[in-house]
Amino acid sequence: MKDKFKPWQRWVLFALAMAVIFASGVIISFLMEHSAEVVNIDYKKKIKINGIEARSIIFAENYPREYKTWVDTTSTDLHSRLNGRTSIDVLAQRPEMVILWAGYAFSKDYSTPRGHMYALQDIVHSLRTGAPMGVADGPQFASCWVCKSSDVPRMIEAIGVDSFYNNKWAAWGAEIVNPIGCADCHEPKNMDLHISRPSLTEAFSRQGRDITHATPQEMRSLVCAQCHSEYYFKGNIKYPTFPWDKGFTVEDLEKYYDEIGFTDYIHKLSRAPILKAQHPDYEIFKMGIHAQRGVSCADCHMPYNDEGGIKYSDHHIQNPLAVTERTCQTCHRDNKETLCKNVYERQQKANELRTLLEKELAKAHIEAKFTWDIGATENEMQEALLLIRQAQWRWDFGVSSHGGSFHAPQETMRILGHGLNKVFQARMLISKVLVAHGYTDNVPLPDITTKEKAQQYIGLDMAVEKADKDKFLKEIVPEWLQKAKANGRIVN
Amino acid sequence: MKDKFKPWQRWVLFALAMAVIFASGVIISFLMEHSAEVVNIDYKKKIKINGIEARSIIFAENYPREYKTWVDTTSTDLHSRLNGRTSIDVLAQRPEMVILWAGYAFSKDYSTPRGHMYALQDIVHSLRTGAPMGVADGPQFASCWVCKSSDVPRMIEAIGVDSFYNNKWAAWGAEIVNPIGCADCHEPKNMDLHISRPSLTEAFSRQGRDITHATPQEMRSLVCAQCHSEYYFKGNIKYPTFPWDKGFTVEDLEKYYDEIGFTDYIHKLSRAPILKAQHPDYEIFKMGIHAQRGVSCADCHMPYNDEGGIKYSDHHIQNPLAVTERTCQTCHRDNKETLCKNVYERQQKANELRTLLEKELAKAHIEAKFTWDIGATENEMQEALLLIRQAQWRWDFGVSSHGGSFHAPQETMRILGHGLNKVFQARMLISKVLVAHGYTDNVPLPDITTKEKAQQYIGLDMAVEKADKDKFLKEIVPEWLQKAKANGRIVN
Repeated sequence: MKDKFKPWQRWVLFALAMAVIFASGVIISFLMEHSAEVVNIDYKKKIKINGIEARSIIFAENYPREYKTWVDTTSTDLHSRLNGRTSIDVLAQRPEMVILWAGYAFSKDYSTPRGHMYALQDIVHSLRTGAPMGVADGPQFASCWVCKSSDVPRMIEAIGVDSFYNNKWAAWGAEIVNPIGCADCHEPKNMDLHISRPSLTEAFSRQGRDITHATPQEMRSLVCAQCHSEYYFKGNIKYPTFPWDKGFTVEDLEKYYDEIGFTDYIHKLSRAPILKAQHPDYEIFKMGIHAQRGVSCADCHMPYNDEGGIKYSDHHIQNPLAVTERTCQTCHRDNKETLCKNVYERQQKANELRTLLEKELAKAHIEAKFTWDIGATENEMQEALLLIRQAQWRWDFGVSSHGGSFHAPQETMRILGHGLNKVFQARMLISKVLVAHGYTDNVPLPDITTKEKAQQYIGLDMAVEKADKDKFLKEIVPEWLQKAKANGRIVN
Repeated sequence: MKDKFKPWQRWVLFALAMAVIFASGVIISFLMEHSAEVVNIDYKKKIKINGIEARSIIFAENYPREYKTWVDTTSTDLHSRLNGRTSIDVLAQRPEMVILWAGYAFSKDYSTPRGHMYALQDIVHSLRTGAPMGVADGPQFASCWVCKSSDVPRMIEAIGVDSFYNNKWAAWGAEIVNPIGCADCHEPKNMDLHISRPSLTEAFSRQGRDITHATPQEMRSLVCAQCHSEYYFKGNIKYPTFPWDKGFTVEDLEKYYDEIGFTDYIHKLSRAPILKAQHPDYEIFKMGIHAQRGVSCADCHMPYNDEGGIKYSDHHIQNPLAVTERTCQTCHRDNKETLCKNVYERQQKANELRTLLEKELAKAHIEAKFTWDIGATENEMQEALLLIRQAQWRWDFGVSSHGGSFHAPQETMRILGHGLNKVFQARMLISKVLVAHGYTDNVPLPDITTKEKAQQYIGLDMAVEKADKDKFLKEIVPEWLQKAKANGRIVN
């Protein structure tokens, strides 16, 4: 048998075969991989952006995918996505909440939240902001804008903290005109995540921590925590302040508020000094298993997407259940139906305790009012009112956090359980005071089966509120927008 | 350059090289693999076992690894494993529980559970089984043995259901002498998992299900569920029965008991018709995420082990935290410390609500007694007593389940939360009855800060109980063992 090739030819053939196999591997690997977006940030920049740019559309040309998905937050609200429904009137669903907030603007209007794009539309339309016809009219303060718009950091940089906050809400109607957008979380020069609201930096600092040492993964939660946290408006200028000096639990925050003698409002019926929880999303999230495992807000609410091989963060911030294939299912090997069911089950269990507590709190306020009416003294009522404050703080902390009953289901139920314990202690004390005043019957309870009935019971004239609001929306808001356009605050 | 080999020689060399590489792969694969125990069951059998064999040591020669690890349950108790402590006197830690069980034997003695090997030792020594000096003496019935020994199925097969159960507990002291062992879960002829307690099969059947259709994985929980479930003793012969006809939740079981008018005891203080929860482990486990993901009891409590390449189920049933490397960590990529912390955190949160509820329940019983004492009528008390029954059922269901606050943390807290709501409703009603009888002060509460004080308050003479028990242990128990040995019931 004759050998057709010379030795050196065989070596060449062998090397060629090896090269072909190697190349095939590389090509297959490239085809399989979803390549990350690694193009240089400066290379991508078509438009150079200087300073705080509140108009998000300016970023659109540089970051079209991020911009486009941010605009999609117009359809963010969970209910419209999952159930084909729009924002829900919570007070109509749970009229007891009108009673709990008697003496506070939330008793007028409270609906389920919508996407970032709606932030301004919703605050302007809410009955909570009233109908200020002049720049010095109330009821709300400039601090009410703080988390609604990227015009806030722009204004603060332009005029200073004091000049911004030492005003009524209506003072800045023509300035605060772009909803939450790019500048709230990004440094325009390099698009790094940054803290635009100094309240968070200051809270870290008081805890002895330096927020500039936060890791990139921590920043993916901290930019959210700037607003999605519990806060209060401090001092004369109503400066937004995080009550985190003693820690993050419902008890830590209460202790902070108690020590500084803070109260959001005196309850109109019970006269209890109430703490209104904002939305302690970050605090409760931190106490759940996802945070404990290093998951950030953005991991689930801004999952990665890819488009033509470009990987980018989805800025359509929404309920992760709407896109489980890019959120839960990147870690959990279960189908969408199962995962949604697991979440709903957690929510339903927490909601059972919430409903019990809500109903008892409404009774406690009504019974306390009755007790005052028959002649109870401050001294007799003091202990019960403190318990009502504590119970309602727990109710609000457990309920007002977006997604709390999923983020930390057990912590939420722990909080609500303690709330139940406190509200009953309050009701039992009130009953003792009633007996001491010779009243031994049950306290007559008003009909609060609808939002309207509950609002009427606490003395709200909703017809007037709505008529005033309509006038404001018709006469003032168009002026604000016109002025904003004239000053170039909005791109149109 | 001259070629040293002829073409056919090169082919032979090539074929040889390929063969060596293939063989290496196969050898490495064998070395890396933990081969499963696939030897034929019949081949392994050195000793042939016929019928129900209660003496587990008989199985030792055939299944040395399983037997050895089963014997290890002598060190099963969590506390001795993890904290260097032995069984804990729960009543000493939580004297309120003495009050809750006034009128029931649990108020005398209740400690944390120990391993299967201790099942008989603990029931014989417990003050709950009293000091029966004759076979017809109480206080307990034969059904008290049902889950303690593999002699129970043996006896039932030998003498029939009625003859077994229609007796006092003391009647079978010389027969029930081997603790929970092989025969309780295994068919001796092929070691298949089997149901040795017909109560479970019957409960399935009443739900329209056929337990013989259970999958092998389901059987890895169902053999445990034979005993680790809620049950009651039905009718004159006190036949163990599972109250599952309406479902598995605390509400489903309560509805079942209410419909048949079942009550475990009338509370000695409040006269409330109390339901004593046994240990609804299986029911609560089913409501947690592990069961929902298809995990069985054995997956965590009897993890696989390997020894010399033989894979076997660890029969040292214990707290999975003791061996996280073979339990949690087969799925969860977290270190032992983190995993333990996560579990303890769940337990602590549930325990907060448990403690609140426990204290309120004790007050409710004491206040109810006071109210009876000043002349309350059945009619006045009825509603409050029903609420106490419901609240205590929830407390007991949430507390008595082994590991419930880990198995289904949220369900446990939901149950305890509803318990809190019920007990306060009861206390408020009782307070109304007191006022109606002209009593407006607080009800004086006894000192129940220690187990001894609480036991004295409810009228127990613990010195007599203990002296009687000592006599029983000294005089009767040795007789039982002697007789058992003489009859070959124990291998010695």
